[in-house]
Amino acid sequence: MPENSEPRRSLLIIGGAEDKIGRVTILRRFVRLAGGRKSNIVVIPTASSLASEVIEVYSTVFSRLGCPEVSSVDPQTRLESSSPELVERIDNATGVFISGGNQLKLSQLIVGTPLGDAMLRAYERGAVIAGTSAGASIMSQFMISMGEEGVTPRQRSSQLTQGLGLVPGVIIDQHFDQRSRYGRLLSLVAGSPSLLGMGIDEDTAAEITNGHEMTIVGSGAVFIVDARRAQTDAHEARRDAPLLVTGAVVHSLPYGATFDLTTATLTDFVEQNADVAVTAAKDQHDTATAAAALRH
Amino acid sequence: MPENSEPRRSLLIIGGAEDKIGRVTILRRFVRLAGGRKSNIVVIPTASSLASEVIEVYSTVFSRLGCPEVSSVDPQTRLESSSPELVERIDNATGVFISGGNQLKLSQLIVGTPLGDAMLRAYERGAVIAGTSAGASIMSQFMISMGEEGVTPRQRSSQLTQGLGLVPGVIIDQHFDQRSRYGRLLSLVAGSPSLLGMGIDEDTAAEITNGHEMTIVGSGAVFIVDARRAQTDAHEARRDAPLLVTGAVVHSLPYGATFDLTTATLTDFVEQNADVAVTAAKDQHDTATAAAALRH
Repeated sequence: MPENSEPRRSLLIIGGAEDKIGRVTILRRFVRLAGGRKSNIVVIPTASSLASEVIEVYSTVFSRLGCPEVSSVDPQTRLESSSPELVERIDNATGVFISGGNQLKLSQLIVGTPLGDAMLRAYERGAVIAGTSAGASIMSQFMISMGEEGVTPRQRSSQLTQGLGLVPGVIIDQHFDQRSRYGRLLSLVAGSPSLLGMGIDEDTAAEITNGHEMTIVGSGAVFIVDARRAQTDAHEARRDAPLLVTGAVVHSLPYGATFDLTTATLTDFVEQNADVAVTAAKDQHDTATAAAALRH
Repeated sequence: MPENSEPRRSLLIIGGAEDKIGRVTILRRFVRLAGGRKSNIVVIPTASSLASEVIEVYSTVFSRLGCPEVSSVDPQTRLESSSPELVERIDNATGVFISGGNQLKLSQLIVGTPLGDAMLRAYERGAVIAGTSAGASIMSQFMISMGEEGVTPRQRSSQLTQGLGLVPGVIIDQHFDQRSRYGRLLSLVAGSPSLLGMGIDEDTAAEITNGHEMTIVGSGAVFIVDARRAQTDAHEARRDAPLLVTGAVVHSLPYGATFDLTTATLTDFVEQNADVAVTAAKDQHDTATAAAALRH
């Protein structure tokens, strides 16, 4: 990298339940972004009620993938999140991994503390910040929590809390397909139409570069809803009522898609799940043979 | 109605599990559209494996709502669907009600038979045609069936079969919120982008007048997806792969919304679920008081 260039800023936002045993596609990508054999990774298991298991699992996976140094930071109070020792750990990291669990615990214990600030600094200087499940949602400025399953948007079916702010204009939801969270995401976007809604499936990640270029990693899809030109009744509908949302634009993006979050448009797509039928191949062969024959 | 005017054509397409005991909003609307005390209603329970219970329940409800004449037509073979007696029953009806069950049984036994033709004739002369659940889906020309729950569209997660064709340009799915059918509907629309996708919640109906004016009846919402300007990879993705669908426009429409199916736009909305906060009312009062005081 030339000395005077801006660092490449990277986020890896995972919808939960990423593969840890098979091809480990997403976690492998994280390790690569963190610098591989030169990485220094910090795991934050604070959202989880099983912190020691979380540390054990991710340390093992990251070590197997070649990371020389994996440590953890697990504050239990906001005071602990001011500890210079924990802050220094983040300041030295090339990758930070936020586990799943209860994202409200992360807002309570980390957002707005010196530890949270250190994570923002780490991101700005080019360390990759990754989070899965709760660790994904906390990355947004307006963080989603609570809410029922289902596809129909209902008034006050979910809520917003302050998140880390690594992704300012996007509400990030996870386990999207598996827990059917379309309705709750749409209900929040209906109330705050200038925020994009992003729903990430399990074993799937949105990799965001420099704050706006998104590519997809993993086996599922990333869903985007853009309600900036939509009309809704979210300012007046009663609690639990189905909401009017008309004219929202949606995108379902699998591996191979590149999407710009500023313009909310697909910028590239390379089919990764092709099923070129035998007949199609045969047709091509027939055409090529005929073309060759006709040339003589 | 002036003698030379076209009859008003009405469909009542119900997402299943409509209320039969409480306020009976949707079935009441059906009876009204069928002519109330002057109605002649035919129930088609053929999709159900509990035909006699279906007949009993709907006959009781419709009679309580003032219908003088309720009968049933329940063909078990395509030959029976050619029976002049059954056809005559439909020819004399002012309302036809198609029950839930297995919609593939309806395609097998009714679509393309004299009985099916009689239903199309009945619709054209102004009898209301209603259907719930399977009876809703069979109304479309391209009928959805099968498919998993979930919100991510996947290749070949659902299938199309020939339906009655009362609604030519729309694929109709039901139990939409309750069975989380967003993904399967989107996957079919991705493959056939000129068809609108319509998902109807339980205890909710799309009332369609003259083939394109839609209003909503009941407690849930009607979802519309318009993929006519979307880009997808449905022509090449392998089976079960998450599909690329980018730029589809969606609408979630509760009671109070009027929507034009030809232009796929909201044409009117009257809030029916308002929760006018006390503070808002107080603000208005304050403003009115101040305005009055300032005039003196």
